[in-house]
Amino acid sequence: MSSSSGSTAAATPILKEEVDIVIPTIRNLDFLGMWRPFFEGYHLIIVQDGDPSKVIKVPEGFDYELYNRNDINRVLGPRAHCISFKDSACRCFGFLLSKKKYIFTIDDDCFVAKDPSGKEINALEQHLKNLLSPSTPFFFNTLYDPYREGTDFVRGYPFSLREGVPTAASHGLWLNIPDYDAPTQLVKPLERNNRYVDAVMTIPKGTLFPMCGMNLAFNRELIGPAMYFGLMGEGQPIGRYDDMWAGWCVKVISDHLGLGVKTGLPYIWHSKASNPFVNLKKEYKGIYWQEELIPFFQSVSFPKECTTAQKCYIELSKQVKAKLGKVDEYFNKLADAMVTWIEAWDELNLSGVKSEALSNGPAK
Amino acid sequence: MSSSSGSTAAATPILKEEVDIVIPTIRNLDFLGMWRPFFEGYHLIIVQDGDPSKVIKVPEGFDYELYNRNDINRVLGPRAHCISFKDSACRCFGFLLSKKKYIFTIDDDCFVAKDPSGKEINALEQHLKNLLSPSTPFFFNTLYDPYREGTDFVRGYPFSLREGVPTAASHGLWLNIPDYDAPTQLVKPLERNNRYVDAVMTIPKGTLFPMCGMNLAFNRELIGPAMYFGLMGEGQPIGRYDDMWAGWCVKVISDHLGLGVKTGLPYIWHSKASNPFVNLKKEYKGIYWQEELIPFFQSVSFPKECTTAQKCYIELSKQVKAKLGKVDEYFNKLADAMVTWIEAWDELNLSGVKSEALSNGPAK
Repeated sequence: MSSSSGSTAAATPILKEEVDIVIPTIRNLDFLGMWRPFFEGYHLIIVQDGDPSKVIKVPEGFDYELYNRNDINRVLGPRAHCISFKDSACRCFGFLLSKKKYIFTIDDDCFVAKDPSGKEINALEQHLKNLLSPSTPFFFNTLYDPYREGTDFVRGYPFSLREGVPTAASHGLWLNIPDYDAPTQLVKPLERNNRYVDAVMTIPKGTLFPMCGMNLAFNRELIGPAMYFGLMGEGQPIGRYDDMWAGWCVKVISDHLGLGVKTGLPYIWHSKASNPFVNLKKEYKGIYWQEELIPFFQSVSFPKECTTAQKCYIELSKQVKAKLGKVDEYFNKLADAMVTWIEAWDELNLSGVKSEALSNGPAK
Repeated sequence: MSSSSGSTAAATPILKEEVDIVIPTIRNLDFLGMWRPFFEGYHLIIVQDGDPSKVIKVPEGFDYELYNRNDINRVLGPRAHCISFKDSACRCFGFLLSKKKYIFTIDDDCFVAKDPSGKEINALEQHLKNLLSPSTPFFFNTLYDPYREGTDFVRGYPFSLREGVPTAASHGLWLNIPDYDAPTQLVKPLERNNRYVDAVMTIPKGTLFPMCGMNLAFNRELIGPAMYFGLMGEGQPIGRYDDMWAGWCVKVISDHLGLGVKTGLPYIWHSKASNPFVNLKKEYKGIYWQEELIPFFQSVSFPKECTTAQKCYIELSKQVKAKLGKVDEYFNKLADAMVTWIEAWDELNLSGVKSEALSNGPAK
């Protein structure tokens, strides 16, 4: 039983050579101050969204690289269009550039939460524990994560399944402002999430879930190529479905590859709700398209030859074009962008191109 | 949002005309003393296992009927063999005799647990809340039960699925002694469950789980005929798989009928671990048979004509015989007993036979 839920302030950073923290932002990163005890010692990749001439201030003492739209255009050239503009979907540019095994991505309105004992939660440490311990997607364990200290598989859990499978992604939750859609925000403007549910669990194979990008970690080697946040924001008909899209792709591909996806701990403190009227405008097409997307993803299957996340993702792009193109022309464009994303991924990750493309150096 | 997690001591009993509490036992029911604030006002069906000449004492003030082996033989006649002897699987005789809509079944070594605030947990009330609010088996909600007060469906949850489906069963958990199999008990004799996970969730469609009968409630009208605890104990090659068997049957049938199964709250306090050496003897065949049972249940499908739990259960008995009969002759016997159980169910529940069969009256 290799995992436990403890959180420690200013702990020695674990796996610091193997983790990048990716933050999309349009503002000064004062929120990092509160994360200092947990993030210092780790490397940050900051993806600046919006006007590239704006200067983003990063508090002193952090090890970071910062990319703006000009950098995205320079690094990706004609493929830069696959990275969204004026939308936090741009965060996936950071996933592309990273060379680390693990990514933790967090929004700049997320602060350190406290557990019921009042202790500050080291979200990154919990995510790494989730990623380092196996997942159990084939059978449900009623006492939740069986690898956690003080817990195990219960009576009736098949012994052949107790080794588990590698964990591809760890989806963390939010105290205070819950991640609601615009209609729910409008109907329940004052609802806050005060319930600390002390559990991590594997989302079973064959089950889709709404993956929020606010507090998310993943194993880049296992699932990175599927962590594409799509075409959102400026010039696109929808927004706020970037992480959902990525989540559905990640889940069907993880299911096919025999990888696990966990949800639950750690919590972060989500400080402020976004404007529900603005959100409604971004979301409304997604809200009805989604009714066709879910049956699509529920029926996706991959041929045996799809043995890597890349191969699965290319196959998925074909199925998107074949089956969702008729829902809206947007999905043809998205399917093309999915291919472009994989081309960019392979170029930057399978060759030595990255260091060359970046030879002018990122802003710092 | 009709459900909340509150528990109140000595609350007015809700739905008392629609609930039976079923307790299998071999000893005096002193444990009921602690449950008095929560169970008084409800009707108990006590199924006495083992020697029928032994007198079981029930604390004063409870409304109950008590059946022993002689009663089972008298009521069921030639069908009595489908009710296990010297095994808590005999509890399903109580499910058969009940005429109520909801059943709560609890073991006599289970006591009232406390929530983290120190408040005594009204397990029955929480089970009824779980059963009265819908389930969401088709898509995972990351904030758990969306119908609970202070919670909702998160962004990305399809609106067409937010009505949910009727809930067939509510599986509660255990503080103190966890429900481990004999090998795990032997390896971790001192492990105790101290973690209160404040959540109720629907087990997704297509996912099997290990259902423990210690702290369990269900809607008898929706799923009662599938709550058969099989052939265990005296004269049978296995034990301690009665609730597991019922759980796998209940889950595949609920999935087919579009019903939900929940797990999580409420907790009870499980006072003492059973003897792991005795358990190992009971379980060992189940431990390896199970490796074939799980793939079997994962592949079960029902034709469209199976529109009720009864019809599904008869169909399942045929598949058990066809596919598991080769694993061991025991499964042929079990398949026959499944049919006998449904015959008994129909006789006692679809006609006026019960009152007649019981005309001599149960022990009281």
